[in-house]
Amino acid sequence: MYEPPTESTEEHPGEIGLVQWNDFHWEDSFVCDSGDELAGFTIRYETYGKLNAEKSNAVLICHALSGDHHCAGIHSLSDKKPGWWNNLIGPGKPVDTNKYFVVCTNCLGGCQGSTGPTAINPKTNKPYNLDFPLVSVRDMVRAQHLLFTKGLGLSGIYSVIGGSMGGMQVLQWGIEYPGFVEKLIPMATTARQNAQAIAFNEVGRLAIMQDPEWQEGDYEEGKGPNVGLAVARMMAHITYLSDAGLEEKFGRDKVLKPAARSHFDAEFQVESYLRYQGQSFINRFDANSYLYLTKALDRFDLFSPSGQLEDQLEKIRSRTLVIGFKSDWLFPPGQNRIIVHAMLRCGLDATYAELDLTLGHDSFLVHAPDLYTLIRNFLAA
Amino acid sequence: MYEPPTESTEEHPGEIGLVQWNDFHWEDSFVCDSGDELAGFTIRYETYGKLNAEKSNAVLICHALSGDHHCAGIHSLSDKKPGWWNNLIGPGKPVDTNKYFVVCTNCLGGCQGSTGPTAINPKTNKPYNLDFPLVSVRDMVRAQHLLFTKGLGLSGIYSVIGGSMGGMQVLQWGIEYPGFVEKLIPMATTARQNAQAIAFNEVGRLAIMQDPEWQEGDYEEGKGPNVGLAVARMMAHITYLSDAGLEEKFGRDKVLKPAARSHFDAEFQVESYLRYQGQSFINRFDANSYLYLTKALDRFDLFSPSGQLEDQLEKIRSRTLVIGFKSDWLFPPGQNRIIVHAMLRCGLDATYAELDLTLGHDSFLVHAPDLYTLIRNFLAA
Repeated sequence: MYEPPTESTEEHPGEIGLVQWNDFHWEDSFVCDSGDELAGFTIRYETYGKLNAEKSNAVLICHALSGDHHCAGIHSLSDKKPGWWNNLIGPGKPVDTNKYFVVCTNCLGGCQGSTGPTAINPKTNKPYNLDFPLVSVRDMVRAQHLLFTKGLGLSGIYSVIGGSMGGMQVLQWGIEYPGFVEKLIPMATTARQNAQAIAFNEVGRLAIMQDPEWQEGDYEEGKGPNVGLAVARMMAHITYLSDAGLEEKFGRDKVLKPAARSHFDAEFQVESYLRYQGQSFINRFDANSYLYLTKALDRFDLFSPSGQLEDQLEKIRSRTLVIGFKSDWLFPPGQNRIIVHAMLRCGLDATYAELDLTLGHDSFLVHAPDLYTLIRNFLAA
Repeated sequence: MYEPPTESTEEHPGEIGLVQWNDFHWEDSFVCDSGDELAGFTIRYETYGKLNAEKSNAVLICHALSGDHHCAGIHSLSDKKPGWWNNLIGPGKPVDTNKYFVVCTNCLGGCQGSTGPTAINPKTNKPYNLDFPLVSVRDMVRAQHLLFTKGLGLSGIYSVIGGSMGGMQVLQWGIEYPGFVEKLIPMATTARQNAQAIAFNEVGRLAIMQDPEWQEGDYEEGKGPNVGLAVARMMAHITYLSDAGLEEKFGRDKVLKPAARSHFDAEFQVESYLRYQGQSFINRFDANSYLYLTKALDRFDLFSPSGQLEDQLEKIRSRTLVIGFKSDWLFPPGQNRIIVHAMLRCGLDATYAELDLTLGHDSFLVHAPDLYTLIRNFLAA
């Protein structure tokens, strides 16, 4: 049986320790890119470190599809794991909370406290479910901007950092609010979803929507299409890793054979690992939210109808470091590189680093000293 | 809505035309690699062309996971499509039925007429379902060998050809019956399933087994876990293609928007295409058979416990041409190349060709003149 490793923190200079979340409530109308209107929304967020007197040291962390606002520290002393980017963020770490005021939000449409399909629709006093509007990556960024300007009273951000869907948000920040952000660090991302990425998302959505427990999205809280959601997660999880990474970690290693085993019980370690990933996901993620967020990914497209990236990217006024990972086959290096090339064609301040990490798309989430050096120095420069 | 293309045959020199299948019944005991015993089995097969007087011109075609014995010609004048390798096989084609006596079998464990989990268990007079023994690729080959020796009365085969799971059978033929086959052509295959390929198969199996209609494998004929099977097929189908191939074929093209569309209806052409693939699969494939055949793939491993391929491959006495496809990421070129390298280290007559086709793993199934030339000339040499 697969057992998740406990995380070692001994290499890290310091830990944030206990953290709490906050909620920002926007009580006015918010019109989504789809044209649909929300009467208001909540954005759940965490902050680490202190805002300086000049209000110039804010760093925004944007999470990926299955992430949330809890990217560093622990919520309770009994937590088995810290936030999802705890390797990167903390006192003395690359995103140094002794220097920066770090903010991380759960995205609009998410299911960890921000308004999404599980939220109560004020018109019906029931959960929105599929009455929730289709949200876009740009909607997520506009909601974050309201938090920063109206909630936190800031008129600028030092840096926005994120991978995958987080990287899409980083790019959208630069385009939507030119001059607001000094430094952008998008990584393992793309300027638009390609057909293969859409295809995988679609299979995941169909696994959810064809689960009888989905009930056209109107499942009760705590119930729902757990089987479909687990299948979607297991499949997606393979796309976040790499052939070589899986081979190195699991190869053809077998699980200990139980006394009685039916033909199709988990036989290989990689099967047991995937089953664990699927099961743990259904305990922390809402299936409808998964549909909405994957759809936001699929609709993300910075290209103009004539096939140019420059029309959008030329608006950026931030120094930009794009980071790609050689083993990432979901958003492979080429998809990251073209972002920088388009920015350079626009005469903008952009650069590209490609790291030879073997763990695939999720390389940005693992312990990666080369990545940390890049981020630390780009922020300090 | 995706519409499958009708197949053009105008480039081909000739067509086989109407064909029929035959059944070979083996009435004796057959002990599987698992140790379980079948009291007998049926292998459904088709033949094209004529056996020569010397009985020296037989060519065996081995199908992949979702294939069957119907690889060329048509069963009825109203058939919309010919057999799955009709591009390759026929009068004047690379596998020339004017010269060769071509045989293609449905594999043991399959669901198109050969004995598999849908067959009637003589002990219970009910379908085997999960009482069917786990079959291996070697079992499939041993059943084919009985057809050739006891059924067709042959003491040798001129060539065995196949891709993917078919390629595994080709290798196993060379190992199991040294000297029986003159020429082996395995393509888009591997000497063992790696962790990533096992992982995708496992997600497919879980999608099937967690569908409530699966009923622990005891679903009624005509019913069954169609949702799970379609999800498994859609996901697997992505792995048979390639990033570039999907991008070229579909990109971000959209389906025509219906008057009313819910949030998660198919929006992109690639989604509509995948839905079509899933739906058409459930009409022709049995879910339990899918479990058994993917398990046979996952257990396929020609490496010795000490990590050597030579122990098995040194037995081969056939001229061997291994063909890999650059865009195949399920069984990528490297996995094909090492087969030849190991054979060369054994001093055997093996060579390797790598084709720069863009359509991924399924490249061997599409119209590919370079592939046809390789096969035609290797057979003629």
